[in-house]
Amino acid sequence: MVKRTVLGAVECPVARALDVMGDWWSLLIVRDALDGVRRFGEFQRSLGVAKNILSARLRALQAQGVLEQVPASDGSAFLEYQLTPKGRDLFEVVVSLRQWGERHTFGAKERHSVLVDKAQGKPVARLVVQAQDGRPLGPDEAVVRKVAALRR
Amino acid sequence: MVKRTVLGAVECPVARALDVMGDWWSLLIVRDALDGVRRFGEFQRSLGVAKNILSARLRALQAQGVLEQVPASDGSAFLEYQLTPKGRDLFEVVVSLRQWGERHTFGAKERHSVLVDKAQGKPVARLVVQAQDGRPLGPDEAVVRKVAALRR
Repeated sequence: MVKRTVLGAVECPVARALDVMGDWWSLLIVRDALDGVRRFGEFQRSLGVAKNILSARLRALQAQGVLEQVPASDGSAFLEYQLTPKGRDLFEVVVSLRQWGERHTFGAKERHSVLVDKAQGKPVARLVVQAQDGRPLGPDEAVVRKVAALRR
Repeated sequence: MVKRTVLGAVECPVARALDVMGDWWSLLIVRDALDGVRRFGEFQRSLGVAKNILSARLRALQAQGVLEQVPASDGSAFLEYQLTPKGRDLFEVVVSLRQWGERHTFGAKERHSVLVDKAQGKPVARLVVQAQDGRPLGPDEAVVRKVAALRR
């Protein structure tokens, strides 16, 4: 909560969405890792977070199987962090937060970073929840079936 | 953080995903509101959270323009909470967390609740990040263009 003002000022829509919702250091670490950040110092500079907090979050993400430590890609003695398949699979979560942040946390005259398709350089399409036949679904068109109901 | 163990035991994949990532009461409130919860007592029973914490989170979500208070739908003197358009627009975020939780936080023999298309009763399709021409994109096929780069 301490960092609210700091996060709110940055250009990344994901950070702003998280700023609205709470204290989400772990997902910001995943966001950075998806963007290619691999070293402790890089995470620290990107996030502006205290070393002890960052260390704790990195350890927790390793314990959860989201990040793993690997030898440095440049052959040096350093260790780097990389996302596991479970961590990389958070891509849609980060993109959904980004897109919500883009729509709701920037003023009309504010610029924000943009996620683009590498092949064509165009912004990625908006994520849409769809039925299995491709119909777009809003929140009123979907319902959660609880386990108790599924057992019947 | 106190509620980790409690959250980890429930059937909802969203709750488990959040359990992995941190302290996300606010998004759990949004999840419940998307599922039709409107009254303070209902949120409290669903979330198992202390009244003072729930009150603070509900106030914060109102301040952020995610929730608003409206007269009770049954004509009684109670006030209810409903999502604003900004709040309803978190649907894709909640669904993305749900789907990640479904894939990564349940054992092979564990059941979880399922989000289904009301019209056909089938589970919703998996969210996929796509290029504007519909190509599915993984994290290595997309890149963030920062504002500084966009200005060039």
